[in-house]
Parts: sequence; C-alpha cells; structure tokens
Amino acid sequence: MRKITVEASTSYPVLIGEDLLKYAGREIGQYIHPCKAAIITDDIVAPLYEKTVRISLEEAGFSVCSFAFAAGEASKRIATLSDALEYLASQEITREDIIVALGGGVVGDLAGFAAAVYQRGIRFVQIPTTLLAAVDSSVGGKTAVDLEHGKNLAGAFHQPHLVLCDTHTLKTLPKATFADGVAEIIKYGILGNAALFEKMSTDNWQEDMEEIIETCVCMKRDMVQEDEFDTGKRQLLNLGHTLGHAIEQKSNFTMTHGHAVAIGLHLIARAAEQKQLAPVGIANQIADTLKKNNLPTQTNFTAQEITAGTLMDKKRRGGEIPFIFPQKIGVCSMIKISVTDVADLIRLALS
Amino acid sequence: MRKITVEASTSYPVLIGEDLLKYAGREIGQYIHPCKAAIITDDIVAPLYEKTVRISLEEAGFSVCSFAFAAGEASKRIATLSDALEYLASQEITREDIIVALGGGVVGDLAGFAAAVYQRGIRFVQIPTTLLAAVDSSVGGKTAVDLEHGKNLAGAFHQPHLVLCDTHTLKTLPKATFADGVAEIIKYGILGNAALFEKMSTDNWQEDMEEIIETCVCMKRDMVQEDEFDTGKRQLLNLGHTLGHAIEQKSNFTMTHGHAVAIGLHLIARAAEQKQLAPVGIANQIADTLKKNNLPTQTNFTAQEITAGTLMDKKRRGGEIPFIFPQKIGVCSMIKISVTDVADLIRLALS
Repeated sequence: MRKITVEASTSYPVLIGEDLLKYAGREIGQYIHPCKAAIITDDIVAPLYEKTVRISLEEAGFSVCSFAFAAGEASKRIATLSDALEYLASQEITREDIIVALGGGVVGDLAGFAAAVYQRGIRFVQIPTTLLAAVDSSVGGKTAVDLEHGKNLAGAFHQPHLVLCDTHTLKTLPKATFADGVAEIIKYGILGNAALFEKMSTDNWQEDMEEIIETCVCMKRDMVQEDEFDTGKRQLLNLGHTLGHAIEQKSNFTMTHGHAVAIGLHLIARAAEQKQLAPVGIANQIADTLKKNNLPTQTNFTAQEITAGTLMDKKRRGGEIPFIFPQKIGVCSMIKISVTDVADLIRLALS
Repeated sequence: MRKITVEASTSYPVLIGEDLLKYAGREIGQYIHPCKAAIITDDIVAPLYEKTVRISLEEAGFSVCSFAFAAGEASKRIATLSDALEYLASQEITREDIIVALGGGVVGDLAGFAAAVYQRGIRFVQIPTTLLAAVDSSVGGKTAVDLEHGKNLAGAFHQPHLVLCDTHTLKTLPKATFADGVAEIIKYGILGNAALFEKMSTDNWQEDMEEIIETCVCMKRDMVQEDEFDTGKRQLLNLGHTLGHAIEQKSNFTMTHGHAVAIGLHLIARAAEQKQLAPVGIANQIADTLKKNNLPTQTNFTAQEITAGTLMDKKRRGGEIPFIFPQKIGVCSMIKISVTDVADLIRLALS
C-alpha cells in the first residue's frame, strides 16, 4: 500500500493499494471516530462494492446507511443533490457523521458537494472506483454539479478527510471507462512528466499501475497545495480541459469526460503548433499515444460549436480565458486568450 | 453613517445609514471594481427598491441584471437556488462579477448561498431591507436553504464583501415584519447587553434605531470574529432559536422566524427558571418586553410536537443538543442537553 499526504486547508492521506475496499472500515477508523457513515454511490457501483464497504465499516463500529442514484453524468444535477441532502436529513445525519463517496467522478463530485453543504459542511471520505477518479477528481477538494448552462458550474471547495483507492476496482473497469482515466494520466505526462508520457506509449504500463497512480496523485497534490482555490498554478491541470469541456457539453454528455479531454489534449497541441508555441510534431505524438490507449483525437463538432461552449468556461475572467498550451512533452504554460480571439484559436486547433 | 468592520476570513465593512440605497453604487464601487452585478431579490422588494439600486449601480459603472423570486420562506428551497444559479449562468456571470442580495433574510440566505456555490464561489454584497436581516442574517456569512426535513439544513459559510443597511427601508416595514427584527434585538439584549434590553421596553427606542443596529451588529461581529464557523461561542447567538426553529417549522413556516424566536426566548427563559438556572421572574420580564413590541410569547403546539422538531436541530452532536439558557438579563450560557432529556426540558418550558 502506498500513502501520500495532501496538505491543503486540511491535511489528509491518500491510500493506494490492492483490495483496500475490504479494509475500508479499518482504515477510515484510524482517522475518524466511529459514527454514522452515509455511503453515497450509484446504481452501477452499488451492486459491485457497496456490501463490501458496508460490512467493513460496520465491523469497525460505524453505523451505515446508503443512497444510490442513477449512474451517469446526467445525474450530476442539483435535483440529485437535493435528493441526496434530503436522504441525509431523513437518516438524521449530523455534523459529527461522515459521507462516504463510493464510485467514479460523478459520485465523488456530487457526494463531495453534498458533504460541503449539508448542515454547512460535514466530513467525507473519497473511495474512487474508476481510474479517472483515482488520478484526478478524488484528490483536491473540488466538488460540483452541472447546470443546464454548463459543466461543474455549481460547487464548492471541500477537501476529503481521507481518500482510499483500491486498485482492484480500477483494473476491472469497462474498456472505455478505463480509457477515460488513461486520458487524464497522459495529461499529467504532457503537463510535467515526460517519462510518464513515454511509459503510456508502452504495451505493459498497466503492470506499474500503483506507481503511476501515485505519480499522478503526487503531481496533483503539489499543485493543490500550492493553489488550493484554483487561482493560479492549479489551472495547469486544465490542460486539454477547456476544449474538452466544450466538446463534452456539446455532445450532451454522450461523450465521456476522459474521451473529450483526449480530443482536447490533441486539439490544444495542434493549436500550440500552429501558434508556434510548440514544435511541429507534438500533436501527432500526443495523438499516437492517445490512440494506442483506445482514445479519440478528433471531433465532428464545428469550430463555431466548440467556440460557443468555450466562451461559457468557468475560468473566463472578464474578457479573457486562460488556456494551457504544451511547449514540449513535460512542459506547459498558461496563456490568457481574449474572448474575441477564441474563435481563431479553435479554428487553428481544428485546422 | 456608521461603519463597522468585520474581520472574518475576509474583512468587510457594514455600513448603516439613512437612504444608503441611493448611494449603493458609489459605496460598492469603493470596494469592488465595476463589473457585472446580478441583483437577487424577491417580488415584494423588487418593485420597492430594485430600480433605485440598479440606477445607482449603473451610474457607478456596473452592468446590472436582476432575478426576483416569490417572496417568503417557502421560496428558500433548493429549487429556487437552482433557478437563481441557472439565471446567473444565463447572464454569463463569471468569477469576477458580483451578486447583490437585496431583501430580507430569505433573500440574503439564498443569494448568499448562490454566491457561495456559483462557480465554487463569487463575491456578494448584502443589502438587508428588513430589520431582522440588518441585525442578524446579513452579517456573519451564514447562508442556507431549507430542506423538507428542516430549516437551513443545506448551506455554506460565505462572507459578504460589503453590507449596506439603509435604515429608511427598515422603518417602512409592515408591523409584523418589523416585530420580527425586534425579537432578534431583544435576544441580543438578553444575551449580553442589559441596557439594550431595558431600552427595548421603552416607548421611544425607535429614535435610536441606527445606534441599536450598530450595537447588535457589533455584538454579532465579535462572536463571528471569535468563531466564524460556529463551533463554539457563536452558538450563543442561538438563544431562543432551538425551540424557535422547531415551532417555525411545525407551523409550516406560516409563523415567521422572529415571532417563533420570540416564543423561543420566552420558553427557554421559563425552562431556565424551572431548572433553577435563572431567577424566578425572568421569563415574565422577557415576555413583557416581547408583548410590548407586538411579539407572541406562547405556542399552541404540544411538548411532543416541539420535541420532534428540536431533535432534528443542526446543532445536534451525536447524543446531545446545545441549548442557550439565560442566567440573568445580559448573561447566558450554553448547556448540552442529552437528546433523551430534551422532551423533559420542553415540558418544563411549556409548564
């Protein structure tokens, strides 16, 4: 088992290891005195893992209840948040109790947001069961739901008390769901670790899964510690995400986050080449690694469609949107683009 | 004009004065660079004051849009929050823009919560237009909506950037709405200012309105500064509120907050007498001052009904609920009551 400590406004451990779900109660019990634990999960994860976690928690002295919603991004809405909050109240969960987010990114984001606002904030534990959630959303305290007008437009910064990542759950994911996480790992490589990027082009990288997750979580931790509230360096994590979000939303979320980010990574590298910010060839290099990992690199949406979505980006400040451009594999930088120039940038990316 | 500075996680001024609405833009402009300002208000306040505030903001260089919901506690729900958030997104409000909460406690709590979670938090200005909001909810950063299961069960701590209190708006309130605020002022007196309590029994206290509001805001400020996240001393502000909330909720919010708190103040004083925590006579003394200010002191709900509501209190920690008891006028203390003893306490209060 590997252990990483994140030092944000609260300090918390991220545990990574095989079969950690079975020891969830024991591990959580080391950090949180037994109390009521409300598991929030979805109807795909619940039949797979809810019982294991429940038994483990009960054996450690926790009193357990659980709430499962329909799996999928379409559930990441205020209506589901409302249902979850009413459920917590119906179970008389108090500020001394905890929420356990058991599932992928949608579960973590929604359950984390519920924890952030239920009675103005209670503690929660992240148990990511997808590779994407393990390397990205479970660490860093960003919680959110989507609005009609865009992704993650309502949320809170609320750090978990503990993150438990059972690598067994990650290895048994459907192929496309697994690839979603791989896109995010490739992002970390482009962002700041050329060796990691190289590794993701090899055939046998999955043998080093624990180490790779640790590498990604450490990179994210370093950025979160430096910039918990996402006003500076943490924005680098948005590499590939600004265009990715626009594509994901434009698809009405029929395209998953990781797949959209994969396209976003390729497109922004293409734009970087065209703007002579990065050497020619980097976009193809990124595309090759993405394709090798069953990820898409192109979109059928028009520049106009992607531009419209991009202009609603949360990061927009007055007249500018910060974009993260690769300079070379392992080095990226943020450049603010005027909203009037976004359409041109996206045309370059698609050229 | 009086100015009080609150030093919480962010520092902000509370301005109190006659006709401040007309100068809202000028005053806000001293603290916030002109940007988009989204006024959130209700359909009673909007026709009275929205235009004044809008013109004032526009003259100061702000670009203004506004959202009004149906007035009343019944609107303080996640559904209204959702509407407000979608409105903000539809207006392309970004993290550089501001929300202006124009109205009473419901508006302030809901608009403040919207500001806390929209794009994970944007700045907001409180313009309380009721006496209750002026002396209580507009200062301190508690924001919330109600759930089906209870009042203020979902929310966030999010401090305003500025509070503007126009005493003219407070003096022109309907009699019952005005009395709601008076109940809270009487609470401050019982809590820590015997002279203020005495003044509230006189006929002409309204002549000193500005000073009285300042006194209350200063008391609240001191507690907020010491305990921003409500884990200790700030709980004293709940004097009369634990039973008050239960009564308010039991009435399905047909009884207003201040009226319910008035009853709560009298009942808890009665319980304090019965438990020999306070001298005999204090409950009658409080009741007399409440009645003189057109406030109720009794309820028709049974001890059982009030007990059920009280057990859902947010302050409940495991097996205990903290109650604030008066010891004498101007001195109160917190005593944790086991949930198994709450029914007895409430029977004493009603005896």
